[in-house]
Amino acid sequence: MLGFVTNTNQQWLCRELSNLGHQVVRQVTVADSTRAIQESIREAFGRAELIIVTGGLGPTADDLTREAVAELLELALIEQPAVLERIQTLFRTRGRPMPAQTRVQALAPEGAAILHNQNGTAPGLAIEVDRSRFGGCEKGMLILLPGPPRELRPMFASEVVPLLLKRFAGRTAFCCRTLKTTGMGESMVEQQIAGPLQALVKAGLELGYCARFGEVDVRLVSRADDADEIVSQAERVARSILGQHVFGTDGDVLESVVIGALKDRRLTVSVAESCTGGYLANRLTNVAGASEVFAGGIIAYNNTVKERELGVAAETLSAYGAVSGETAREMAGGARLRLGTDYALAVTGIAGPGGGTPEKPVGTVYMALAGPGETLVRHHTNVYDRESFKHVTSQQALDMLRRALGC
Amino acid sequence: MLGFVTNTNQQWLCRELSNLGHQVVRQVTVADSTRAIQESIREAFGRAELIIVTGGLGPTADDLTREAVAELLELALIEQPAVLERIQTLFRTRGRPMPAQTRVQALAPEGAAILHNQNGTAPGLAIEVDRSRFGGCEKGMLILLPGPPRELRPMFASEVVPLLLKRFAGRTAFCCRTLKTTGMGESMVEQQIAGPLQALVKAGLELGYCARFGEVDVRLVSRADDADEIVSQAERVARSILGQHVFGTDGDVLESVVIGALKDRRLTVSVAESCTGGYLANRLTNVAGASEVFAGGIIAYNNTVKERELGVAAETLSAYGAVSGETAREMAGGARLRLGTDYALAVTGIAGPGGGTPEKPVGTVYMALAGPGETLVRHHTNVYDRESFKHVTSQQALDMLRRALGC
Repeated sequence: MLGFVTNTNQQWLCRELSNLGHQVVRQVTVADSTRAIQESIREAFGRAELIIVTGGLGPTADDLTREAVAELLELALIEQPAVLERIQTLFRTRGRPMPAQTRVQALAPEGAAILHNQNGTAPGLAIEVDRSRFGGCEKGMLILLPGPPRELRPMFASEVVPLLLKRFAGRTAFCCRTLKTTGMGESMVEQQIAGPLQALVKAGLELGYCARFGEVDVRLVSRADDADEIVSQAERVARSILGQHVFGTDGDVLESVVIGALKDRRLTVSVAESCTGGYLANRLTNVAGASEVFAGGIIAYNNTVKERELGVAAETLSAYGAVSGETAREMAGGARLRLGTDYALAVTGIAGPGGGTPEKPVGTVYMALAGPGETLVRHHTNVYDRESFKHVTSQQALDMLRRALGC
Repeated sequence: MLGFVTNTNQQWLCRELSNLGHQVVRQVTVADSTRAIQESIREAFGRAELIIVTGGLGPTADDLTREAVAELLELALIEQPAVLERIQTLFRTRGRPMPAQTRVQALAPEGAAILHNQNGTAPGLAIEVDRSRFGGCEKGMLILLPGPPRELRPMFASEVVPLLLKRFAGRTAFCCRTLKTTGMGESMVEQQIAGPLQALVKAGLELGYCARFGEVDVRLVSRADDADEIVSQAERVARSILGQHVFGTDGDVLESVVIGALKDRRLTVSVAESCTGGYLANRLTNVAGASEVFAGGIIAYNNTVKERELGVAAETLSAYGAVSGETAREMAGGARLRLGTDYALAVTGIAGPGGGTPEKPVGTVYMALAGPGETLVRHHTNVYDRESFKHVTSQQALDMLRRALGC
């Protein structure tokens, strides 16, 4: 409420709930106050069957949700031995003493289902509620989840989704498919596929686009009775038009697609990064099991490192500059040789805000892919803030490798 | 409501309103539906004196806010010649024909003040409302702003702030300070400072905590008449207890603090990363101007790279393993020597989910800081998902350097 934190849980949960066929009717944020929490839950039950509350389950004095809910629903809070045991184990594993107040996280309102937390101490809770007392009709479900996204997201996937599928089974025909594309702008994607998909739109296809940095999602949704068939047909049409621009579906990310393809082909990769400063390697190593195919990399932020660690010739640097296709080519070749991998990706450019010149403005970037065949070199101009620059640039570099691998 | 857009206006507006001394009591998001918009405004007037609504002022079919508000407040919509003139001029300037539908943006409920839009066609609107009809007391104010942040933010600054300062003059004192801490858990921070701050809490201090990965924010807020004095005193007390755990205030991030300290001292740093796979370098290079002090790094994901590029002895790897204090020490020393920097940070560990053993479970990490003095080595157990592991580990490594620099 003070504006220090952007609420990303709202967006994330709305997306997940929409994908499951639920219609989100309201999002509410209130302060850490028992009265405000109770008031908002009471109002929400007059409006909806399913209420998801996030945050306020931690151990400190401003974590009030568990108690506020128990009081509102007139349920006793009961300590759960299995949860307490898990919290104690977690502290033991981390070699830290368990503060006394941590224990409150083992409390649950009677009758609540415990949602296991793989990434923190506070479990989630799911409670069946008689909505008639709040002016609603029938039964409702109240789900409490921890606020930190790294706890909430895995818990939602592993614990909440199965619960919702069972609880609200057969309530909506719904099919949703997202095609992940890269290398083409949003308007261009729309221009190419909107016409050919028109007939399916008339039959009940909803077509949506979401432009992200360096990629465009095409969302194919149907709530018609033959939703599955409509969405499958739409996917075939869109894929036939977009071809290699489609790199995956739904939750796929480019780095996973690339790591997967390298594993399948038993090939290895290394990186040589200047302007991306470790971001490209970081994306690759975010993929579990990346160590099978990713050997390592050289972050050559200054020219001495480019020469000494990657073998870029001093003449190349003085003749063409550090930000040039020639330097990118030598960086990729150097990394491939030094780190002994089948492929090497190299990136050099000007992230900004400083460092631009009239010939090479901020956003200028050269990238190269060295491999068993000819070394490929590409030039882009990515005019963004510093962090977005890194992301878009790494996206283009990963896509060079993806296309070289033919996946 | 479908989860395609993150609402950043909420955070931004809450921050601005807090800074002006207003207490935000609720944030609500509803769908583009006349009924939902009216219902939420009606409810809000029962609760607050000031309501800010964003979005829904554009020219398309799903922009319903202007009409919904006029209907709810029983006010006629009247075309404003000056606004229409501005919209027409804007289209002329851009050399584009003005679509007929755009004209609705010149409509305003009778009696509304027009808030000038420097960056778009839809003006904002400010309306004095008799709240008694909605169960509130006294008068209230309803402000409608366009949704796009690049229109909303300048309009808020130039049009809304002066309006609020006049309308709510002398109503609230407010002071807010966040202390950023690291190296101590949320419960432990609270345990140490809550008691000593008790007297100030009684005098009007609000104390809040926000646990992030590897850091805890302590928020000191006061709305009392002597808010500035209370928050200053609280900051002194908290700092005297938390000491070196405090690395900054308000919007500070650890990587900026470290880069800033290196710049001040004219010292350089490099990194040798195994398990963090580029994440540590990426954080350092997110700071604009990092190139002055960050030379580069070696991502030594496999052992061959550790030996060849960092000079880790084969005997060290076979005797102690890649994940060991000895290997971390040699990695740091190797990076410092190879990359010619004053300091070098090295990290080696098991990010998981695979790769753990009974002696070295997933989450085990060793880090070393080589510098002009003795090389420091630390051991941690960071049991998290893969990406959080990287963040927490990089946080601990950056903190080693921060403490060595005495900042």
